Amino acid sequence: EDCKQVVSTTDPYADDPPRHPALKVNSQKPFNAEPPSQILAENYITPSAFFFKRNHLPVPKVDPSTYQLEIHGLPKGPVSLSLMDLKSRFPKHTVTATLQCAGNRRMEMNQVKQVKGLSWGIAAIGNATWAGARLRDVLLEVGCKPGSNFQHVVFEGLDRDVTGTAYEASIPISKAMSEEGDVLLAYEMNGEELPRDHGFPVRVVVPGIVGARNVKWLAKIVLSEEESSSHWQQNDYKGFSPGTDWDTVDYKSAPAIQELPVQSAITQPAEGSVVDLSQGVLTVKGYAWSGGGREVIRVDVSLDGGKTWQVATLRGEEEGQEAAPSPPLGRAWAWKLWELTVALPAEAQELEIICKAVDSSYNVQPDTMGPIWNLRGILGNAWHRVKITVRKD
Amino acid sequence: EDCKQVVSTTDPYADDPPRHPALKVNSQKPFNAEPPSQILAENYITPSAFFFKRNHLPVPKVDPSTYQLEIHGLPKGPVSLSLMDLKSRFPKHTVTATLQCAGNRRMEMNQVKQVKGLSWGIAAIGNATWAGARLRDVLLEVGCKPGSNFQHVVFEGLDRDVTGTAYEASIPISKAMSEEGDVLLAYEMNGEELPRDHGFPVRVVVPGIVGARNVKWLAKIVLSEEESSSHWQQNDYKGFSPGTDWDTVDYKSAPAIQELPVQSAITQPAEGSVVDLSQGVLTVKGYAWSGGGREVIRVDVSLDGGKTWQVATLRGEEEGQEAAPSPPLGRAWAWKLWELTVALPAEAQELEIICKAVDSSYNVQPDTMGPIWNLRGILGNAWHRVKITVRKD
Ligand SMILES: [Mo]
Ligand SMILES: [Mo]
Repeated sequence: EDCKQVVSTTDPYADDPPRHPALKVNSQKPFNAEPPSQILAENYITPSAFFFKRNHLPVPKVDPSTYQLEIHGLPKGPVSLSLMDLKSRFPKHTVTATLQCAGNRRMEMNQVKQVKGLSWGIAAIGNATWAGARLRDVLLEVGCKPGSNFQHVVFEGLDRDVTGTAYEASIPISKAMSEEGDVLLAYEMNGEELPRDHGFPVRVVVPGIVGARNVKWLAKIVLSEEESSSHWQQNDYKGFSPGTDWDTVDYKSAPAIQELPVQSAITQPAEGSVVDLSQGVLTVKGYAWSGGGREVIRVDVSLDGGKTWQVATLRGEEEGQEAAPSPPLGRAWAWKLWELTVALPAEAQELEIICKAVDSSYNVQPDTMGPIWNLRGILGNAWHRVKITVRKD
Repeated sequence: EDCKQVVSTTDPYADDPPRHPALKVNSQKPFNAEPPSQILAENYITPSAFFFKRNHLPVPKVDPSTYQLEIHGLPKGPVSLSLMDLKSRFPKHTVTATLQCAGNRRMEMNQVKQVKGLSWGIAAIGNATWAGARLRDVLLEVGCKPGSNFQHVVFEGLDRDVTGTAYEASIPISKAMSEEGDVLLAYEMNGEELPRDHGFPVRVVVPGIVGARNVKWLAKIVLSEEESSSHWQQNDYKGFSPGTDWDTVDYKSAPAIQELPVQSAITQPAEGSVVDLSQGVLTVKGYAWSGGGREVIRVDVSLDGGKTWQVATLRGEEEGQEAAPSPPLGRAWAWKLWELTVALPAEAQELEIICKAVDSSYNVQPDTMGPIWNLRGILGNAWHRVKITVRKD
């Protein structure tokens, strides 16, 4: 709302990039949008144009030839790296990882009771192939020693609000330095340079961790004894009890979200679809993912509102292919697409289709949104439900 | 059942140790028993006599002076270590860790539809202080190199069935060798030598991992390219969909359970209790824990069947103390005890009390047991529900 007070000739969003017209826009300034959800299960790798855009602030315009990444908090003083330094001095590491906004599926939580935040459907999630320097390699080369006092790595973006405050977030040093953590300073998305909406020229990709810590347009890294002091780390992106309201919330009482819980959703058929009984069968499709590198091991689908369940087929990277071999334990960063083709029950007129996933720690999704409702409408991972009508002609 | 065919003078269970008479026995031979559940939340450290006993076979009688632990699969051939070797050649490492049987709360799942297995209540879980050599230290000293071909560490017990088959299970090498994994070859429980029911003289303690991999009476360690081929690793201790029955189950389709999902239960008041409205308040107590070193960050309690929720107080190690500082990230091996004192609602005659926990990855418990029902009755972590009556005199 602050932005409305700025005169139009200095609209900080005037330099935002063009976007695909098929995106469903939740907010223009800052730009927040998701693709039509059906597109998600049609592509193991989400095309960049359809990858959800979640901007907190205007998109900065960065000249790659003068771009410098600063690293502070080092024993020998700050270091600065150019884009060419990042590309030439460190091995290029490629990771396929799913990113999900903490607010994915907020719309459903909002239907329980009003929450504060953008009204995301089920498509504030995407899976891309990222490439760049490993954060671990960069930190080791500039002199960060494992076992030092620093417990957190703070990331500051080039995106700033009208008061000059930059977007900022942090992750634990154990994740940043882990050989199996796969944290990237990414300069490529899906084989091309990062699109401006996704952090050009350099963003952080923290596989298994909530989108909000994957800082875009990375300006500065600070090794710190404390978490980021930013609004987004301290007073947002935390989960609370359904009994907690804006009068009673104590942000200090909950940890900043890092790993996300197990999630799944149905991308086909769409809510309210009408299918012909004469088709005989129905194909249900969707995605499933879990945080922390925990692999999705099973997706259950119900056509009768949760009374009976069938096991969906987990699809591999190629459409129609069987499930790919498992990634290394604890490094399952990418989602699983799934599908199930079932005979349409002759007697039913309305079907409530439900999906729920199980991850490698046998964590499951809760049955309903009400008991995980929270005032910011985040972490919505209850069973996804879609109602359709079966028509007999 | 095989044992019944053995004549009584050679009863393989004749040498089993004496047990506390207050234990609730689910099976005498092999001995399986849990304490009265109320005792759990009364002691941060579960007294060894009240720690659940989960034996698959007769308790072996081991002479500690001749005990030898064999380690196989090493490049230089097998190694054998005495109890004195384990105690004197490796630093003694102490870990407070909760162990939970995969079948904890099977009784509730059995009420949905019959399952196969011992009828555990909510007390097949306990929290103890274990001490011993780190498995990592032992494996490094005997020449196991990180990054070798071995992907699994197999543990064989001294407990054998009538055919001579020993209990056996395995864990991934990444957990075994991790500096933060805290896997022990334990020879002490709660400051004393291991009780016979808990694996005297040496057992494995794998924090954050299902009880079944914490092999007792450890005879042999085998470094292996494959998981254990035992019944318990391959054809038991795996989770399935509620739609899977004994005719359709394919044990190869699911991974062996390692990390367990988030769990909690109410230990006070007991199901069916009658409380006097004149008391004014009611104190609800219980435990909460999650697998994989994920810390429990919140427990929600409802007195109205899940319509409204209040946040319980997480208690520290000492009774009445505030919550202790958090353990290192990903190493929260011990449970949290919790309690909540609430005013008794004047209008209610019957209360349905519910608890549910949230872990540091914001995983939650599912609402109901039905949709996580599985043919072996394991992994039961739905909300725990207790009905009580409020009496007005
Ligand atoms: Mo987000
Ligand atoms: Mo167990």
